[in-house]
Parts: sequence; structure tokens; C-alpha cells
Amino acid sequence: ELGCFVEDIDNVKPEYVKSFEFDSKLIPLTWIVVRIDGCHFHRFSELHEFVKPNDERALNLMNSCAMSVLEEFPRDIVFAYGVSDEYSFILKKTTDLFQRRASKIVSTIVAFFTSTYVVRWKDFFSQSELKYPPSFDGRAVCYPSIEILRDYLSWRQVDCHINNQYNSCFWKLVASGKRKKEAQQSLKGSQLQKKIDELAIDYNSLPAMFRQGSSVFWEKMDNVLTCQQNGKSSESCGRVIVEHCDIIGSGFWLEHPSILEEKQ
Amino acid sequence: ELGCFVEDIDNVKPEYVKSFEFDSKLIPLTWIVVRIDGCHFHRFSELHEFVKPNDERALNLMNSCAMSVLEEFPRDIVFAYGVSDEYSFILKKTTDLFQRRASKIVSTIVAFFTSTYVVRWKDFFSQSELKYPPSFDGRAVCYPSIEILRDYLSWRQVDCHINNQYNSCFWKLVASGKRKKEAQQSLKGSQLQKKIDELAIDYNSLPAMFRQGSSVFWEKMDNVLTCQQNGKSSESCGRVIVEHCDIIGSGFWLEHPSILEEKQ
Amino acid sequence: ELGCFVEDIDNVKPEYVKSFEFDSKLIPLTWIVVRIDGCHFHRFSELHEFVKPNDERALNLMNSCAMSVLEEFPRDIVFAYGVSDEYSFILKKTTDLFQRRASKIVSTIVAFFTSTYVVRWKDFFSQSELKYPPSFDGRAVCYPSIEILRDYLSWRQVDCHINNQYNSCFWKLVASGKRKKEAQQSLKGSQLQKKIDELAIDYNSLPAMFRQGSSVFWEKMDNVLTCQQNGKSSESCGRVIVEHCDIIGSGFWLEHPSILEEKQ
Amino acid sequence: ELGCFVEDIDNVKPEYVKSFEFDSKLIPLTWIVVRIDGCHFHRFSELHEFVKPNDERALNLMNSCAMSVLEEFPRDIVFAYGVSDEYSFILKKTTDLFQRRASKIVSTIVAFFTSTYVVRWKDFFSQSELKYPPSFDGRAVCYPSIEILRDYLSWRQVDCHINNQYNSCFWKLVASGKRKKEAQQSLKGSQLQKKIDELAIDYNSLPAMFRQGSSVFWEKMDNVLTCQQNGKSSESCGRVIVEHCDIIGSGFWLEHPSILEEKQ
Repeated sequence: ELGCFVEDIDNVKPEYVKSFEFDSKLIPLTWIVVRIDGCHFHRFSELHEFVKPNDERALNLMNSCAMSVLEEFPRDIVFAYGVSDEYSFILKKTTDLFQRRASKIVSTIVAFFTSTYVVRWKDFFSQSELKYPPSFDGRAVCYPSIEILRDYLSWRQVDCHINNQYNSCFWKLVASGKRKKEAQQSLKGSQLQKKIDELAIDYNSLPAMFRQGSSVFWEKMDNVLTCQQNGKSSESCGRVIVEHCDIIGSGFWLEHPSILEEKQ
Repeated sequence: ELGCFVEDIDNVKPEYVKSFEFDSKLIPLTWIVVRIDGCHFHRFSELHEFVKPNDERALNLMNSCAMSVLEEFPRDIVFAYGVSDEYSFILKKTTDLFQRRASKIVSTIVAFFTSTYVVRWKDFFSQSELKYPPSFDGRAVCYPSIEILRDYLSWRQVDCHINNQYNSCFWKLVASGKRKKEAQQSLKGSQLQKKIDELAIDYNSLPAMFRQGSSVFWEKMDNVLTCQQNGKSSESCGRVIVEHCDIIGSGFWLEHPSILEEKQ
Repeated sequence: ELGCFVEDIDNVKPEYVKSFEFDSKLIPLTWIVVRIDGCHFHRFSELHEFVKPNDERALNLMNSCAMSVLEEFPRDIVFAYGVSDEYSFILKKTTDLFQRRASKIVSTIVAFFTSTYVVRWKDFFSQSELKYPPSFDGRAVCYPSIEILRDYLSWRQVDCHINNQYNSCFWKLVASGKRKKEAQQSLKGSQLQKKIDELAIDYNSLPAMFRQGSSVFWEKMDNVLTCQQNGKSSESCGRVIVEHCDIIGSGFWLEHPSILEEKQ
Repeated sequence: ELGCFVEDIDNVKPEYVKSFEFDSKLIPLTWIVVRIDGCHFHRFSELHEFVKPNDERALNLMNSCAMSVLEEFPRDIVFAYGVSDEYSFILKKTTDLFQRRASKIVSTIVAFFTSTYVVRWKDFFSQSELKYPPSFDGRAVCYPSIEILRDYLSWRQVDCHINNQYNSCFWKLVASGKRKKEAQQSLKGSQLQKKIDELAIDYNSLPAMFRQGSSVFWEKMDNVLTCQQNGKSSESCGRVIVEHCDIIGSGFWLEHPSILEEKQ
């Protein structure tokens, strides 16, 4: 019986089977953005009773996972921006991570993020059991210049802003007794800024994390001496931090010039 | 301050930013194979003290996750084959899952598998805490015909066979007191079948899961009546099973004609 | 001055510049169709006073070029189908022409066809000078099975049929004194078969080339002896021919089984 | 008979057949280089008795075709560089020619160039009949910045320089009575600059076209008034010129700032 199996083995030609594989490589010297999104998180957030419109625990869990991703790929990922159940990771334009193979880059980041999400769930939702395995999908996009990359990040932050305004109004209406369908109807086509005033929402006092999303990056140490005292190599200096700030204007980028600096 | 932010918003043009996105679609009416692999599982298996050369708990955990993947995508994934820390999922050639977008298909399967792996870890490793978040990478390949698809699966099973022969010898040598480097040296270029005889390894009595890998698929119910009595639609009939058998010869495929049947 | 130029030379790193090149390879063991189309041939045909709705000289020139393409790539291209200013070339599924690189395959076929078109122009339009360099564009598509490939060819022949019915009616109306806009208006949404009857067009007596398009392929020699008598190798036996026949039904393919035979 | 044909027609589903088509789009806002190369020009040049190592008529014909290409796509192609039987066309980074579809861009440029080459052959080779249809192949590459684009062009000009040094030595040796194989052998691994001195080749007095290749671009008119006097729109001002100069140093680019200017 094994004899027959072994005979069959000799007929298998790996090279021909492997010839069907293809590597779509991301064009060199462009900024790579890997954006991941929660799969069916509408259902997931309801089942796990996320606070609406924003659940601090869920957002902090997302941020914690994103920080882990940066720590896992310290030479390649320079920035991440997250809002709701999505996160965008920016790989520096000179990265050669996995020889810039799209599948490998996307799948590894998505899997690592998801894995961390499950492992750390209990740290953020101590009262609530994970009811089924959550998952994320991802995609990679190349941007040829810093200007376009910043336009991408601005687009995501504008999305955050608009969605948060909408959701703040929507859930205020629901809290006031409106049914979801009515709330939706009443917001259709309306100017959100106006609605916020009408509904007496003190928008600016909402946490910055809700209004601005979360920016994750390596804190640049000023004092290199500290590092040397610790006996660590200068490379390990610094730590990953999360901030909630305007990344559309140039102020943030002028304050943190090292994040998108062109040099390796 | 917000005023400035809001002004900036109006300058962001989503259409232009989105124009950089691209979808690489997998060619229609071809069989899609998504193969996932553990990332740095050499280190992971050492740290979590996997039994060598094969750890039943680890393999059963892999199988359990693969079964979950089939249950999650019952209309699209028709078969899976796993060995060691890798798994290949076969999507039927008529699938339109995610409009056949490669990134979406690969990232979703990889993330769902990884998530399930972490969630079920304690079911298989009750004594051993997960020391860090494991992850997997993945890729998609298209095969234009059943013959080539079966050549692919044969290639993976041959790989399983050869690796298992090698590892059985290697760890026997190590168990007998040889250092790893010596064991490696002594196997270099040698005929494995001969070595197995020399080392008195009773290869055929090893568990079939080690020798043949694991095949996961929907068990076809013979008796449709049972299903109707349960009041369930005929679609929900059947359950996912795992077997350890020769998938190189045609016997298996003749016994289970529905797995690769061309009809939708 | 040259000194400076030579110094600059040493700073040029070809490997890095070449790293931006990418080869999109066409998936192995699928049928490749390269379809080429005349660029701005509406204008080209007016300027060179093509007879309407079909110009025999122009079609014969197209056919002659297609025959040349088959002769140029005798091991790779097995069939071609042409209508109006377009031609589809079928590469057999086992071809490894240019290692199946899409750009190379498409550009070479398009350039060779165009070049031949210009060179042979005077053979078909002896009275009419070429007023400017005509050109064609092209694209490649992969089809995973003979059935789908035949569906592709059927699609092109249906297109030929419908366009020819329409054009026959249109130019009959114009010939009868209608202005082009009127003719167009009167055909809008009408059933073409009915219109043909109304206008008393003897459609079936039109040349088969107009109604069925042109099929180009290698004529299979029945009598191998003839070849051997000529002292030629059996490979060089046969010649490229053009026929105007139904390629939608299976009759044609049954009569010429060697065209799409799966064996090399 | 037609009845059966018409019945078949209704079974053809164009949407499904068209679903196999794919468009590989070139990433937006990057510089596109389309490089074309003569197919089998070694043989072509021998058969048509090109002067060695450089045939002025052949190079002038190439340049004439390249100029035509720029005139055909005045809003899209801003520069071209040619040497021997190859030409590189630079499309400005904001171009939306054919929606940046790679196949369409490459095939159209290659076909137009080839067509022009055949049409103008007799203008440059009045004594010599074209013995068979010449053809070219082509490919597209994207470069994300001006710096990298200039590195690409430098690479091509360095290639021109090295090949021309080699060929000058080779043909001098052949002229002096060496057989081709001997000449080849004697140049193997030798320093070309040294060999040039040894062979007393007055390299710097060779025509600049041989040493530097050919650069093709739009001449910028200084005096817009001239144009208006001609009654032409300002857009049509200017004409395509060819120069033979150093494009590796920055001198050329500083003199012609409009060629690679980033603005539309």
C-alpha cells in the first residue's frame, strides 16, 4: 500500500505546481499603507455590548494592538492611525519588509493584529467573555510621495470627524426616545454642525480620542545619554505612544519631523 | 481651533486618494488555493514545548481551526489540507467570495484562522499558557483545472511524507544521544527509507495524522430524509470532518466525488 | 568635460533602477487571447475611402496580416478570428512564449501585425496611398478552459453578426437618400431581422466574410507522404488558411480537432 | 441553417466572457516610462546592411519616429531618449492617457512607432528595400519621483556610452583584419578607455549622436508673440526637437526646466 503511495510521489513535479504562484510586489520607494478593518463589527459590537457611539475599552484595545504592531516591526512601520474598527499602518518608503510582497505584508500584519486583539481582550473587557473569534481584513496601497500620503491620512481623519458627528447626533436622538429608523430619517441630508447645536451636544468636550482618532508612533528621545546609561543600544531607545490630535494641519508633522523623514 | 480643522477638511478629496487603491482579482472559474503558514513557528513551538517530531495537541488545534474556517465559509471552501504549521484551503472554482479580490480573501481567512487558534488554545494546551500572540501569513494561487489542483495537493502530501520521514529519523538520533548538528550531518543526502530501517523506526505504526497530514471536508449525508425530519433545509445537512488518508491516489476522490464536483 | 561624465557614470546603479520593473505573467496552462483593435479606424477608413458597410480590400489586408502572425509564431498561435478592424489571436494553453510575460506578448504581436499592415497596404490598395501611419492597440486575456475560450469566440462572432446586420441596414438607408442621423434614428431599438426584410436586403447572399468574419488556422495535411516526398520535415507541413464559417456551433471544431487539442 | 446560428447566439453571455478581462493600471502620480526595443534587430541590421558600429540613417529613422510619437501625444509624453534600436518615452506623472491602463499605453505606442518606422523607411534608406516587416516590443515601468526617473535615464545613457566604446573597439579590430571571434576575445574583460587609446580611436571626434544617444523633447518658445502672429493657439506653439547631449549631469535639466516640471 505504501509502495503505491511512494510510486505516486515520484510523479509529482513541484516546480510545475509552484509555477502558478505569483508575487505581486509593491512598487519600490513608495509609502505603503496597510489598512485593516473589522469584519462584521456591527454585529460583533452589539453582541459584546459596546457603548454607543464610542466604547473607550474597545478603542483602547485597538490602540494597544496597533502599538504592538509597531513594536513588532520597528524598522518598517513608522506611524499608524486608527478610528472605530479600522487601523492604517504606514510603512516607510524604503522598507524592504518581505521584499515588498503584498500578500505576505498584508496577511502578516492582519494576523498579528487579530491575534493580539484576542490575547488582550480580557485586559480591556474584564467582565465580558469573547463570544466568538473576531477577525479583520486588510489591503495594501502605495503612495508615491509624502504629500499624497498625508492626503490619505487627512481623508481618514475627516472620515472620523464626520462619522463621529453623525453618530453623536444619532445616539443622542435614540437616547431621547426616538426609534433608530426615525433618528436616521431625521439626520438624512442635514448639516451635522447645525444638528449638533440643535441637540445641545457639547461636541468639543467629547474625548479627543472620539473626535480625532488615535495616532500611534515612536516617541523620539531627546536625551541619548539616558539610553546609554541603561546599557541599551541607541536603537532600542524610544517607545511607542498614542496621541489624539489633528494630523491634517502641518503642526503635528513639524513637531515630529522624524516620522516621515525621507532618510533611512 | 476647530474652525481651522473644518476648513482643512474641505480640501481633502477622497476620490483622488482612493484612486491609488487597486484590486487584484483572481481569474474567474479557476480553483483558488489559500495557503497559510505559521510565522516563526520554530521558535513558537520550542517556547511552548511542542512534542517532537509531532505534537498531537498542536496538530489537533490546527485541524480544529481549519474546520471552523470551512464552517464559516460553507458555500466557498470545499476542502482543506494541513500538515505541521501550514494549511491549504481550496475555494471552489465558481466562488465569488469577496468578488474574488485576492487581498480580502487571503486576509480574512488568515485572520479568522489565527483568531480561532488563540481562542481555542486553552482547549488543546490546558497546562500551558500562550506566551505571545502567534500569527500566520497567507497567499492565494489559482489553478485552472482539477488535475492541476490535485497535483498541488499531492505536492503538499509528498512534502508531509518526506518531512515526517526526515524528522522521525532526526529526533530518534537526538533521543539516542546525538547532538542536533551530528544528527543533521548524519542524515545529509541519505536515503530516508533506508535510514528508517537502520534506526528500527516502525514507521507504519506512526499515527496516520503524522504520516498523511489532515484532510478537512464536508461529510456528505446519505440520508436526506433525516435532514427533512429535523426541519432543517437540506443545505445545512452535513458536518465538517477531518480524515488522515492518501489524497494522491484517485481512491479518495472517487469516494468523495462531491468535493471537487464542477457543478455549483 | 568627459571626465565629469565618466565620474557620474559610476554613481548609476542599474540594479536599483531595474528593481522598479515588473513582469505581469499570464497564469500557466490557460488559453491566452490577444485581441488587437484599430486605433481611430473610423477616421482612418473614411480618409482612405473604405467601401461601406464592408470593404473587401481592407478585410483581406487584415486577414493577410493575421496569416503572417500565425506563420511567425507557428508553435504558439493556433487560431485567429477577425472582424472589421479587430483580430483575436489564440495562443495554445501550453505556450511558454516570452515566458508568458503579458507586455512582451501583446506588444510583439501588435507591432508585428501593424508593421505587416503597412508593408502590404499597397498589395490591397494599389490605387490609394497610405495617408498616415495606422496603428492598433492590444490586450491579453486568459481563459482557463476550452469551453470558456469557445464562449469567447462565439461572443466575437455574435458581435460580427449583429454589427453587420445593423450596418447593412444603415448604409442601405443612407444609399436610399436618408441622412446618417435619420438612418440612425430609424434603427434605434428596432429588430434588425425585421428591418432587413423591410429593406429587402438579401442578407444571405452577402459574402460569408461579411456575415461570419474570418477564421485563420493551420490546414492539417491529410497525406503526410506528400510532405516526405518534398523532403521537408513533417513540422513544416501544412499552411495557414482563412475560412468564413460558423464557429459558434460545434461542427467546425469537430471537423478541425487539432486546433484546440490539449496535447502539445 | 441561419436559424440554428441565431439560436446559438442567444446563449452567448458577453458579461461572463468579459469578466475574464483585467486592466493592470499604472499607479497614479508616478512617472511612466515606456521602453521599446527592436525585435531581432541583430539580424534585421545585417540583412539591411546597416553601417557598423553605428548607422546614421537607422538612428535618424529611429529619431524621426520618436519625434512623431511625441507629436501624437503632445499632452502626455514629455521626453524620449533613444540609443541603437531602443527608445524610452517618458509620460508625465499627471497623465491620464487611456486611464493609465498598461496594455493600452504600451501597445499603442509600440504600434504607432513601428508603423511610422515602416512608412518612413524609404525616406532614410532610399536605396534599400525593406526586406520584411520589422517589429518592436515594449514595456511600461513606473517611477515615483523625478530623482529616480533621472537615474533611469542616466542608466540608459551610461549603457549607450559603454556599448559605443565597446563597439567602436570591436569594429576597429574587425576592420584591421581580425576575425569577429578574435576581436571579441581580445576585448573580454579589458578596460575600454585603455583599448580606445591603444587602437588610436579618436573617440571624442565621433558624432555626439553615437556617443550620447538622442534626446527628444518640445522646444519651448521664448517669444509667444510669434505664435499669435501665425494665428495659431498658444498650445500649438513649439516643436519637437532632437539633441545629443549629456542628460546625466544636471546642466541639461536646469536649461530645460519645463520638461519635468511637476505642474500640469
